[in-house]
Amino acid sequence: MTEKQPVDNTASGVLLSNSTETPAAVRTLALTVAYDGSGFKGFARQPGQVTVQGAIEQALLTLFRREVLTTGAGRTDSGVHALGQVVSFNLGADEIDGRSLVKLQASLNALTPDGLTVRALSERPPGFSARFSARSREYRYRVITSSTPPVFLARYAWWVPSDGPLDVNAMRRAAAFLVGEHDFKAFCVASSAEGATTMRRIEQVFLFGVQHLGESGIVIQVVGNAFLHSMVRVIAGSLVEVGRGSREPEWVGEALASRDRRAAGPTAPAHGLTFWRVSY
Amino acid sequence: MTEKQPVDNTASGVLLSNSTETPAAVRTLALTVAYDGSGFKGFARQPGQVTVQGAIEQALLTLFRREVLTTGAGRTDSGVHALGQVVSFNLGADEIDGRSLVKLQASLNALTPDGLTVRALSERPPGFSARFSARSREYRYRVITSSTPPVFLARYAWWVPSDGPLDVNAMRRAAAFLVGEHDFKAFCVASSAEGATTMRRIEQVFLFGVQHLGESGIVIQVVGNAFLHSMVRVIAGSLVEVGRGSREPEWVGEALASRDRRAAGPTAPAHGLTFWRVSY
Repeated sequence: MTEKQPVDNTASGVLLSNSTETPAAVRTLALTVAYDGSGFKGFARQPGQVTVQGAIEQALLTLFRREVLTTGAGRTDSGVHALGQVVSFNLGADEIDGRSLVKLQASLNALTPDGLTVRALSERPPGFSARFSARSREYRYRVITSSTPPVFLARYAWWVPSDGPLDVNAMRRAAAFLVGEHDFKAFCVASSAEGATTMRRIEQVFLFGVQHLGESGIVIQVVGNAFLHSMVRVIAGSLVEVGRGSREPEWVGEALASRDRRAAGPTAPAHGLTFWRVSY
Repeated sequence: MTEKQPVDNTASGVLLSNSTETPAAVRTLALTVAYDGSGFKGFARQPGQVTVQGAIEQALLTLFRREVLTTGAGRTDSGVHALGQVVSFNLGADEIDGRSLVKLQASLNALTPDGLTVRALSERPPGFSARFSARSREYRYRVITSSTPPVFLARYAWWVPSDGPLDVNAMRRAAAFLVGEHDFKAFCVASSAEGATTMRRIEQVFLFGVQHLGESGIVIQVVGNAFLHSMVRVIAGSLVEVGRGSREPEWVGEALASRDRRAAGPTAPAHGLTFWRVSY
């Protein structure tokens, strides 16, 4: 068993197989995973914490009797949900031989905790990484503005008690400032801005109404190539300021241009956010 | 303070006011209540248990400093959810004077536990009873047939792992046997059948697909004048048998005619059921 490696290096395809002389043929698998963020301390493995990556790697350890490191398409924070998180990992061809992928998926679902479901399992081309091969990512942020607290969506939407509905058209005008390639330094928490570039490209921000289990809300759907830490939550917090009429739509453009986190709106709570889908 | 009365008698409008000589003018209020059934041992008050009615009556006790008995439109079982349960109670005119209904609703929401929301509060004509004045009741039962377990709907739908989708058209043909006035003795649990009539009228059974939080399912919407104990759950359990192809649609008609509980399908689990709406 080798030392545990940092997450970012796992995409290089290091295979921790038992073979010593010639490396066994590598096969790359990808899981599509849904989880209720309420039950996890975020995606990334952390010693002593129940995390999504930790739960999946624990299941893989049980199945393959060795440490199998995984790479996720997005490192969701504690409380953030996922419908279509993608997690990739490498196995030796000999480890897969004789196992059907359907059975492997069922075994993973049996070994992972409630609130986490492996919805699909497929083989990908050699070199595939859930993180680095991603072309675009989609997040959805749910807001509820009912005057009374939601019951069924309490864990899956941000309740913004309001005297009236949000001005969705003003929010759409504000969102238009964010579409395109920009420096999103003002729209992320500081930790992710150190050293690395804060340029990102947003392809689309789409707002629409929904009704789930009888409760009405608004969804902010954001599609982009990649996202900075808490970026969608700061976008949601800022658009809600506009929707409530506390700010004009143009303020979002000014905040973006400022590159100053203090100029943008608050960070909306984690439980309203769902990592929806990844495209490759 | 008088003795606690059985629920069924509260509709007669007995007012437990402090006035002794002349009864104070009675005013009747009705709450529209949503709750997540996961957190309650059913609707009906039970000593030592957290129930919906118990929680509401506790809040009323705190607000009015006396026992205020309530009547619900439907006594949902443990685990059953509600979006539009209606709960009525009487107050003396002097108890309401100087309080706005909006403020009373806010106070009730502050005093009741998480997972229970008073969505509306209105005054009704004298003699109104949430139970006896109801003209029709609507329940919705959610079924999910995904091959992998649902995450977001796990608490709000019955997961029926299936090799394929349910045959919804066969379920519709089966449901048609239930519409109209019938003896539903075969479609209820024994306790509710003792002594009282088991004749009920179903106005409509409507089946449709839904997607909630990215997970797909089928809703069985049932509207009727009143329902026997577990009646919607036995209907759902029976229709799912037909949807899976285990039974022909005509079997539902035969089960109904038999008046024998053993002839119908299984009782579907409580957590798939939501008491949706009441019409007056």
